[in-house]
Amino acid sequence: MTTTPRVRMSPASRREQLLELGVRLLADRSLDEISIELLAEQAGISRGLLYHYFGNKQDFHRAVVRRAADELIEVTAPTSHDDPMEQLTASLGAYVDYVAENYQGYVSLVRAASTDESLHEIYEQARAALTGRLFEVAGREQLAALGISDSAATRLMVRGWSAFTEETVISWVRAPAGVSREELLQRLAQGLVALVQEPVR
Amino acid sequence: MTTTPRVRMSPASRREQLLELGVRLLADRSLDEISIELLAEQAGISRGLLYHYFGNKQDFHRAVVRRAADELIEVTAPTSHDDPMEQLTASLGAYVDYVAENYQGYVSLVRAASTDESLHEIYEQARAALTGRLFEVAGREQLAALGISDSAATRLMVRGWSAFTEETVISWVRAPAGVSREELLQRLAQGLVALVQEPVR
Repeated sequence: MTTTPRVRMSPASRREQLLELGVRLLADRSLDEISIELLAEQAGISRGLLYHYFGNKQDFHRAVVRRAADELIEVTAPTSHDDPMEQLTASLGAYVDYVAENYQGYVSLVRAASTDESLHEIYEQARAALTGRLFEVAGREQLAALGISDSAATRLMVRGWSAFTEETVISWVRAPAGVSREELLQRLAQGLVALVQEPVR
Repeated sequence: MTTTPRVRMSPASRREQLLELGVRLLADRSLDEISIELLAEQAGISRGLLYHYFGNKQDFHRAVVRRAADELIEVTAPTSHDDPMEQLTASLGAYVDYVAENYQGYVSLVRAASTDESLHEIYEQARAALTGRLFEVAGREQLAALGISDSAATRLMVRGWSAFTEETVISWVRAPAGVSREELLQRLAQGLVALVQEPVR
């Protein structure tokens, strides 16, 4: 930590700073490895104070996961309103980079979210936020430009596509299989368009 | 159990029979709800004897999950060598029916396999068996007929497609979103063909 201890921070800022440290620690560690003890050691403050901020390990993990999810939503936010495929590809590129840079923590989050109810809720909210953009006003126009309408069936397929994307990106980071980042992004973006279209009878 | 207790069974047959009962119990219960106690009660034998067959709860769960995975692989086995899309659709139909009939247990298995290392291994083996068929001799010819070649990139996309299929089918069983079983199968099968094709530059 580069902060000088003499600066008195508000409890809220202090908590923010600790959460950011927790998220940074998560980049190359699994969630299980992020203990209150490790955070206290890295932040140079007492465990007692950390328990004061976060209650217990589970609450601390929940707060770190929520913060990591917020970061992911932020870095993948659409930045322009140009060509819809370019915009989708740019968001996917940010997602791929995020997973690559935070691989250990990201994989452990996805796994933990499967069995822990409260983490599952945060995970589902993040997924809804990430895919929901496609159905917001600007996104809906872009979907229409790709020949896709917003329907219950489309939403079902988008949900499936998000699982496809998550699995493919995690597997690609582990073993790229001769697929370049550019080709991966094309495959993911074109995959969405293909999956949501009406099936051929 | 319809077996009369007077019939003396071999330990192997007895174990088989108990495993089958475990898998049947899993249809509408989560894995956590399948205890040695419940199995003992349902089978009408002592808990001590069950511990003799399965060691402990974890070993018992592992054996039940392995058996459930074997069943899934069996029911979705290709039955004919006709049109490749029809064959794929038939296998997917069996998969969809399996998930619908064993919803509680299936979802709990998928979730448990995320965090429990030994269940994860069984899950990955089952997935490899289910998707690997596409790359076996008969399957490879059929892939070629669909214009798909076997490559590392194809295998990466098939892995992603299997996550898409799992998520879409689980979500569809929970809420069909106006999508008929037939349309779902078309979307899943055509999704595979679309995802493994070379991206458009």
